[in-house]
Amino acid sequence: MKNIGIVTSGGDAPGMNAAIRAVVRVAHSKDLKVTGFKKGWHGLIRNDCMVLTPRSVSGIIQHGGTILHTSRCPEFNTEEGVEKGCESLASNNIDGLVVIGGDGSFRAALELGNKSGVPMIGIPATIDNDVFGTDETIGFDTAVNTAVQQIDKIRDTAVSHDRIFVVEVMGRKRGFLASTVGITVGAEIILVPEVEFIAENVFEIIRENAEKGKKSGIIVAAEGIGDTHQLTKDIRENTGLETRLSILGYAQRGGNPTARSRLLASLFGNRSVELLFEGQGNKAVVFQNGSVKSIDIKDSCEGEKRLDLSLIRLAEILAK
Amino acid sequence: MKNIGIVTSGGDAPGMNAAIRAVVRVAHSKDLKVTGFKKGWHGLIRNDCMVLTPRSVSGIIQHGGTILHTSRCPEFNTEEGVEKGCESLASNNIDGLVVIGGDGSFRAALELGNKSGVPMIGIPATIDNDVFGTDETIGFDTAVNTAVQQIDKIRDTAVSHDRIFVVEVMGRKRGFLASTVGITVGAEIILVPEVEFIAENVFEIIRENAEKGKKSGIIVAAEGIGDTHQLTKDIRENTGLETRLSILGYAQRGGNPTARSRLLASLFGNRSVELLFEGQGNKAVVFQNGSVKSIDIKDSCEGEKRLDLSLIRLAEILAK
Amino acid sequence: MKNIGIVTSGGDAPGMNAAIRAVVRVAHSKDLKVTGFKKGWHGLIRNDCMVLTPRSVSGIIQHGGTILHTSRCPEFNTEEGVEKGCESLASNNIDGLVVIGGDGSFRAALELGNKSGVPMIGIPATIDNDVFGTDETIGFDTAVNTAVQQIDKIRDTAVSHDRIFVVEVMGRKRGFLASTVGITVGAEIILVPEVEFIAENVFEIIRENAEKGKKSGIIVAAEGIGDTHQLTKDIRENTGLETRLSILGYAQRGGNPTARSRLLASLFGNRSVELLFEGQGNKAVVFQNGSVKSIDIKDSCEGEKRLDLSLIRLAEILAK
Amino acid sequence: MKNIGIVTSGGDAPGMNAAIRAVVRVAHSKDLKVTGFKKGWHGLIRNDCMVLTPRSVSGIIQHGGTILHTSRCPEFNTEEGVEKGCESLASNNIDGLVVIGGDGSFRAALELGNKSGVPMIGIPATIDNDVFGTDETIGFDTAVNTAVQQIDKIRDTAVSHDRIFVVEVMGRKRGFLASTVGITVGAEIILVPEVEFIAENVFEIIRENAEKGKKSGIIVAAEGIGDTHQLTKDIRENTGLETRLSILGYAQRGGNPTARSRLLASLFGNRSVELLFEGQGNKAVVFQNGSVKSIDIKDSCEGEKRLDLSLIRLAEILAK
Repeated sequence: MKNIGIVTSGGDAPGMNAAIRAVVRVAHSKDLKVTGFKKGWHGLIRNDCMVLTPRSVSGIIQHGGTILHTSRCPEFNTEEGVEKGCESLASNNIDGLVVIGGDGSFRAALELGNKSGVPMIGIPATIDNDVFGTDETIGFDTAVNTAVQQIDKIRDTAVSHDRIFVVEVMGRKRGFLASTVGITVGAEIILVPEVEFIAENVFEIIRENAEKGKKSGIIVAAEGIGDTHQLTKDIRENTGLETRLSILGYAQRGGNPTARSRLLASLFGNRSVELLFEGQGNKAVVFQNGSVKSIDIKDSCEGEKRLDLSLIRLAEILAK
Repeated sequence: MKNIGIVTSGGDAPGMNAAIRAVVRVAHSKDLKVTGFKKGWHGLIRNDCMVLTPRSVSGIIQHGGTILHTSRCPEFNTEEGVEKGCESLASNNIDGLVVIGGDGSFRAALELGNKSGVPMIGIPATIDNDVFGTDETIGFDTAVNTAVQQIDKIRDTAVSHDRIFVVEVMGRKRGFLASTVGITVGAEIILVPEVEFIAENVFEIIRENAEKGKKSGIIVAAEGIGDTHQLTKDIRENTGLETRLSILGYAQRGGNPTARSRLLASLFGNRSVELLFEGQGNKAVVFQNGSVKSIDIKDSCEGEKRLDLSLIRLAEILAK
Repeated sequence: MKNIGIVTSGGDAPGMNAAIRAVVRVAHSKDLKVTGFKKGWHGLIRNDCMVLTPRSVSGIIQHGGTILHTSRCPEFNTEEGVEKGCESLASNNIDGLVVIGGDGSFRAALELGNKSGVPMIGIPATIDNDVFGTDETIGFDTAVNTAVQQIDKIRDTAVSHDRIFVVEVMGRKRGFLASTVGITVGAEIILVPEVEFIAENVFEIIRENAEKGKKSGIIVAAEGIGDTHQLTKDIRENTGLETRLSILGYAQRGGNPTARSRLLASLFGNRSVELLFEGQGNKAVVFQNGSVKSIDIKDSCEGEKRLDLSLIRLAEILAK
Repeated sequence: MKNIGIVTSGGDAPGMNAAIRAVVRVAHSKDLKVTGFKKGWHGLIRNDCMVLTPRSVSGIIQHGGTILHTSRCPEFNTEEGVEKGCESLASNNIDGLVVIGGDGSFRAALELGNKSGVPMIGIPATIDNDVFGTDETIGFDTAVNTAVQQIDKIRDTAVSHDRIFVVEVMGRKRGFLASTVGITVGAEIILVPEVEFIAENVFEIIRENAEKGKKSGIIVAAEGIGDTHQLTKDIRENTGLETRLSILGYAQRGGNPTARSRLLASLFGNRSVELLFEGQGNKAVVFQNGSVKSIDIKDSCEGEKRLDLSLIRLAEILAK
């Protein structure tokens, strides 16, 4: 083991830079060279890369985004794309590749590992927290806090105007972000893609609250639950209350990572290099029950992470 | 002068609470009693009010929203509504009313003042900064900083993905927020309702930047410039670059006020009570050339505040 | 089980309000009445209390501090004090008491529980994270992030001036805060009370970094490591580099709780009421390996929580 | 005019980077080359400099500190130091120098301008806001907001514990920061170097508040008022109330600049290049009565900026 490659892929997540820094500096402490591929799999396909030294990752732990840039790269889903990736790994003498990204990136890494024979280590990084096998992904805690801070502000207006706000947070398929954000902002209602919602029940809760004198309210909805514009309109029409929609959008992806996202990134980065150094590959580093562990990347790709619905039930009780 | 009334009206703005606190405590220092009307003109019409003591405004200077609540109240645009307002002022022995809000609230105050004969003082408070006669309104600085902090986060993703972002900020009719936010986030392009934009010019700037190697970019657009969804789509199609839309939304209205919004609120609140105490009425307190002054509320209602386009021109130079 | 009492005791921690809210609302869902004692044990001794309804804990989840107020109460360490506490519990018909605080509060709860026979449930809340039996306490994550955000700012000045900064964070006896803050700000050196430090080694690391061209640096030191003024002076004299001290101070205790502190508070609050409802007492709710559990409050009082020194060793590698 | 030099000197202030960016890009738009000297006057003396292109100032508008680094440089107070500076200006063909810093930097610029004959433009940048001739300096608004956010957090603990807090903010000689911070956090007492304070009066106000039931309080004190440790002790002993000290420290100097600091920096940077382009020199750009103007740098050096004490008097009324 002499040369480690590193790539960030898929959507960016706050803490990716902290992970890059950890990989580079831990590798350096073990006399390993690190090569960074740029713009996700694009850079691997095009052999667009740079040597990363301990100094080149200085002053990045606190910044969102990724200094290696990232992309979604459909070309890498083709056989030809993976073939080019294998060549690129070979021509740079890469003995092990650290892939920082979500489940899509993990699947691509698995394919590339099988084709190239180069050991792969996946580091789960996505604000969606939807990677199987890990309780938390890099960036999730930051996105949650960004959303919470925004909704705390929206609550000021909701209360001052006695208004209902539907707040759409990210999450096309999964409600991890919505449920954690919902309970921590004290949302009256939380809507996630995993649970089909009955509009009439939503109206009913809002009406009950209004009767008790609670005329403002926050509904946190994952984007995957359907048309939030329509929902907002329906609530207005069915409850007679002023209702507004706010879509939090891309700011949830960026910003300085929280301490927790930085810590997770540092621990994951460290473990990924240790694994490669120990001769292991095709693993994903994960956080389970409070500890960093590793599992087969294949298992992570094949499993489906379940949303803990007890949070949503507790949130309902807490909002009464 | 014994009893002062106070009302917050129209959209809420961060710093309204700081203004209420200042009015109450300065009034108290002059042995004046303060009555707060709730939910804007609604409270005046329905005689829904509360006595405000120095203790009842404790611990509110740092909070967004308004403890008096606010509303848009179409009923107050009717003769009957104003009539009820006059009765309410009389039955509470109000000798002077402080109205905290935007230009709509000022017009209503002017009408009410004429009908009731009670002296009115307007305090300009709106995140839109579109009140004539004052260089700045309460809440504007906070909204600008909220938007800037969000766009700083979005920039992380824009750079990491080499993407163009259209960011829609508040401002249906006026571009004060958009232009100040635009120049301070280093936006490549700023679009305001006051200047008709030519889509082809937007594409051209983006293409030029891309040719120079600058593939990410931020376009700050006031909501009043038209359909930002369409604009985003058009940019994507005409430049071939990944383009995304983010609508910042209602979080711009809330949140803890900045120091500047609190300071302005404190100065305005103080001056408004001083004016009433001096026997003046039908004035708006304003901030002009770095000082607090007062003008006829009528003049504020009749004028139209101009956007300084030189900021936008400078922003263009600074983004090159 | 009809009446639950609740008290916040010792130093305040962000998230205490979220815990109070959870206790009150979960209790309400089980038709239990909640009585809040004010100013910690003082309120119990003096029978200074208030009924807490679901509405009275509205709008507090996002605020630091504690609406019940808190204090350190030496009188409660006396037999007479505890006796008065027992009387107060009896006169208010309290069937179970939830005590929110740190290890000192837990010891007092244990004593009170033994004397009064009233079931006690401890909820660990302290920014120091030094309660045995729980991986995390309410407020810790917030304090860490507050410190990290401050040090990120200090880093700007450190880099711009090529200066060394000693930053003292809270922690008289324990280094939990210092070690987590240290690794997540990328501190060059972390000093904790659990590890005696050799000044010469500190100088040596700073000199080595300077030789490599890294002339700025952050040393995160827990307050319990000794005289940080002297250390700062010694570094200056022994390395010849500009060195400054910054003591972060009390801001670490306050502020809006992070999502994580709110979530932990909500889960702990919920579990504490469930335990009392199930007829259990003299327990502490804790967070172990990613789950909420309960242990004997006696065990929590008798154990000593160990600092994981591997974080500090990793931080050293990451700072190279 | 072909080559402009730029230097940041003295203490760093948030927004210096935004000013550098503005100078470089406006200069570029006028086909001027920009040379940046590093580490303040040190870099000029040692001819340590770099060419600054529009791309080299990309992505810095939102960062605190200064990419050119800065220092306090006693050598530049000697004749020999200034002589070397003149040589460095000549050898780099500098036709005009923009100096970003406080009053000390302005005095040095004046001396250097006189000796070298090269036109100098001063841009006032210091968190202390103590530069004569300008209502506001770059960085002041950011430092105020940083302090305010910290004190908002401290207030949580003050209220929860019924404690008095003495909070020391920066300002060795002047109370601009203390007075603006004090009024905007709602401080009960503000102490500035410009006004000798009588300890007994401080105790009296605290005692009066306590009698009215207001047992917590914030005293904002500029560091220049004397020994705040002693003051804290004296308050404790003379009022019998729990009193704590918190020194905000260096975090006030750093952090992402607020919108206002960025805007001021952009306007100042622009005007400084325009002045040089127009053939003017030995001027300071300033902000007066809401507009950017220029004055003789000599006048700025010779005047003494007065603190507006009416803010402190108003703060007293507002804290009752």
